[in-house]
Amino acid sequence: MSEVRTLKVALLGCGNVGAQVARILIDDAEALAARSGARLELTGIAVRTVDAPRDVELPRELFTTDADTLVKDADLVIELMGGIEPARSLILTAIQNGACVVTGNKALLAQDGPTLYEEADKAGVQLSYEAAVAGAIPILRPIRDSLSGDRITRVLGIVNGTTNFILDQMDTTGAQFADALAEAQRLGYAEADPTADIEGHDAAAKAAILAALSFHTRFSLDDVYCEGITKVSAEDIAAAKDAGFVIKLLAIAEKISSAGDANGISVRVHPTLLPREHPLAAVRGAFNAVFIEAENAGELMFYGQGAGGTPTASAVLGDLVSAARRLVLGGPGRTETTTGHVPALPIDASTTSYYIGLDVADQAGVLARITQIFAEHGVSIEIMRQTIHRDTNSKVESAELKIVTHRASEAALAATVEAVKGLDVINSVTSVLRVEGV
Amino acid sequence: MSEVRTLKVALLGCGNVGAQVARILIDDAEALAARSGARLELTGIAVRTVDAPRDVELPRELFTTDADTLVKDADLVIELMGGIEPARSLILTAIQNGACVVTGNKALLAQDGPTLYEEADKAGVQLSYEAAVAGAIPILRPIRDSLSGDRITRVLGIVNGTTNFILDQMDTTGAQFADALAEAQRLGYAEADPTADIEGHDAAAKAAILAALSFHTRFSLDDVYCEGITKVSAEDIAAAKDAGFVIKLLAIAEKISSAGDANGISVRVHPTLLPREHPLAAVRGAFNAVFIEAENAGELMFYGQGAGGTPTASAVLGDLVSAARRLVLGGPGRTETTTGHVPALPIDASTTSYYIGLDVADQAGVLARITQIFAEHGVSIEIMRQTIHRDTNSKVESAELKIVTHRASEAALAATVEAVKGLDVINSVTSVLRVEGV
Repeated sequence: MSEVRTLKVALLGCGNVGAQVARILIDDAEALAARSGARLELTGIAVRTVDAPRDVELPRELFTTDADTLVKDADLVIELMGGIEPARSLILTAIQNGACVVTGNKALLAQDGPTLYEEADKAGVQLSYEAAVAGAIPILRPIRDSLSGDRITRVLGIVNGTTNFILDQMDTTGAQFADALAEAQRLGYAEADPTADIEGHDAAAKAAILAALSFHTRFSLDDVYCEGITKVSAEDIAAAKDAGFVIKLLAIAEKISSAGDANGISVRVHPTLLPREHPLAAVRGAFNAVFIEAENAGELMFYGQGAGGTPTASAVLGDLVSAARRLVLGGPGRTETTTGHVPALPIDASTTSYYIGLDVADQAGVLARITQIFAEHGVSIEIMRQTIHRDTNSKVESAELKIVTHRASEAALAATVEAVKGLDVINSVTSVLRVEGV
Repeated sequence: MSEVRTLKVALLGCGNVGAQVARILIDDAEALAARSGARLELTGIAVRTVDAPRDVELPRELFTTDADTLVKDADLVIELMGGIEPARSLILTAIQNGACVVTGNKALLAQDGPTLYEEADKAGVQLSYEAAVAGAIPILRPIRDSLSGDRITRVLGIVNGTTNFILDQMDTTGAQFADALAEAQRLGYAEADPTADIEGHDAAAKAAILAALSFHTRFSLDDVYCEGITKVSAEDIAAAKDAGFVIKLLAIAEKISSAGDANGISVRVHPTLLPREHPLAAVRGAFNAVFIEAENAGELMFYGQGAGGTPTASAVLGDLVSAARRLVLGGPGRTETTTGHVPALPIDASTTSYYIGLDVADQAGVLARITQIFAEHGVSIEIMRQTIHRDTNSKVESAELKIVTHRASEAALAATVEAVKGLDVINSVTSVLRVEGV
């Protein structure tokens, strides 16, 4: 290329990630130009307050509160404001003006992604959002492009670093949830208001995006069953550990092709037991990973940092360079294929294995009565282990029963647990947790 | 799209992978058309012998021995013949005719990839080769596109399933190399002539391809230092295990930015010690994984099946659908950026940590003499452990010394080992192995 074109880049938002994106655009301008085939000129950064304190020192003249004007004059728009409005309107303006858009806005994509993809398609521009799921990990492009000749059957993701850090702390130190959360907050892995993370809302948005891409179908946040980690106790973790499992908060999207009319996709987020030898079990601390099962490719896993300004900025810039190359070389945007029409299934239609902990009376025949109930509900038991606690005089103090089932539906399990609770030989149901990867 | 275009697909070669590609093209025609935006019509399969026995039943009329004619009439050419010629000429013909090419030919790409990329660029067509490295794992596209806004500093890959299976067997069962190789052959993980795998040649070709993509620079097989696993003994594995390590055959490409004129890229393949908690250490059996360190993204890992007909076919079809989309939507091919000019460095310029096992005399002052030699050569010792074996009368039978060094250059280490060997208190140097991930 003898003559190098300049592309105007507008940045919306200058938080943790935005500030790093701006810094790299300025510091690495030469390398980015070599890779893009065009000079990427940062023309402005739209913020709410020009003089707000920021982590990174950036030229003051770049800042503006007039996002609209900035967007209208840009070839490439990077949206890192978060939230629904004004992000949504600004992205639509950018698209209608023929700009390519890079965003990390998972809330917006989970709520209204397909509308944005459609608009981008109509305008022939690229809309990229690698940073929206699992931070630095290249996961959306592999699903969309590399696996485009395959059929994904299941996606299991550790997509929230805060909850993985908390569960890992609990697993390693035996801490209770509240103490592990406090430690995560002290170290900056959890926010002062951790609700979005610990209740699973953040993971649920990412689950909706992963499901839409993996199954070429529109899904939104409303299709996602969501259960956080606040009820996971140190005792649950210890029992899981004892049985060879680790507890992870998983975002799951899977094809259900059972008998009857339950064909569709189950999208859900919940604490899940995984065998310790499963590749996802080794994902420690605040790291993220996405495990994919596809018909031909088999098992794949993608691992890396799921958050943080600099890692997430890497994903944003990867999208930016790809979009810039496309503008330089010509050719329209890429089409998201959400041509499929498989329904999202309610949580009752999904099947997993379950781990059930019971505090039982040590009476003759108790096992028979419990197994009878499981059999009546069509829930098959894979492993059952009874531990009897005795006092110093060898008198039975209590008996614990741990059961791992074969795959069963949520509905069958719920009915089984209800029925078991009604038995007079049951003191309490100590835990009911889903199991994957067995 | 109201009117659906048909794209003609020519398949060259019908071995393990080719037969699966053909099967999926026929069986999944509808899904592939939906994703591509065009019907993908398999027009022929070029083979040496039309009636050779094959794993998959395919329509006999598709087979031809006339690859030239087949290629000249195709929009998309899939080359899975392997070897240099006629694969190279056929790919060049396809490119010159404006066809997009998908290949899994690592030998050809490692030898002459940059020439092919250039020709494809000139002709404005895509040349894709995801299947050439780590089978089903999407690794080339993430490096090329997702990390295009970042700087990769190091790539560590388990890219040969045969050797990983053998080393994993040795680690798990304590078997010697020859027995583990025989087991791998029995199970079909190793070929009757396993030379290309166990001597590291296959991994070296993949290392050259990974290095070229990661560092935007031309590298060929000649730039790769290569050492296989035939000399790894059960005793090496046991000693490594004892010290908390696992031995893996790694393909390594890393930026060396030391003082002096040693700036460049070290590309090498050799048995390597990894700490058991390193993500790559958990890659078992015949699985592959690539671990990437980038300036902004931090640590990433990509894991999956590295070989096998069906998994590799998934990678080929992903490339095919992406190329078809581009043909449908218009626009030129993608440019490989091999615009960099960092030199490949000889193995002597690379630095790693080392694990050294010594059988020493139990004499006063022996440790002092050995550590003195390390210090004289500028090799810093990180961990040193002495184990003394005594007979039943508590008489010393032998003493073992295990040393893990800090990072040092190959040259400094070789000189250190030579000097240590010359000491009269040394009975033998039992192992010298490189260490990564510490």
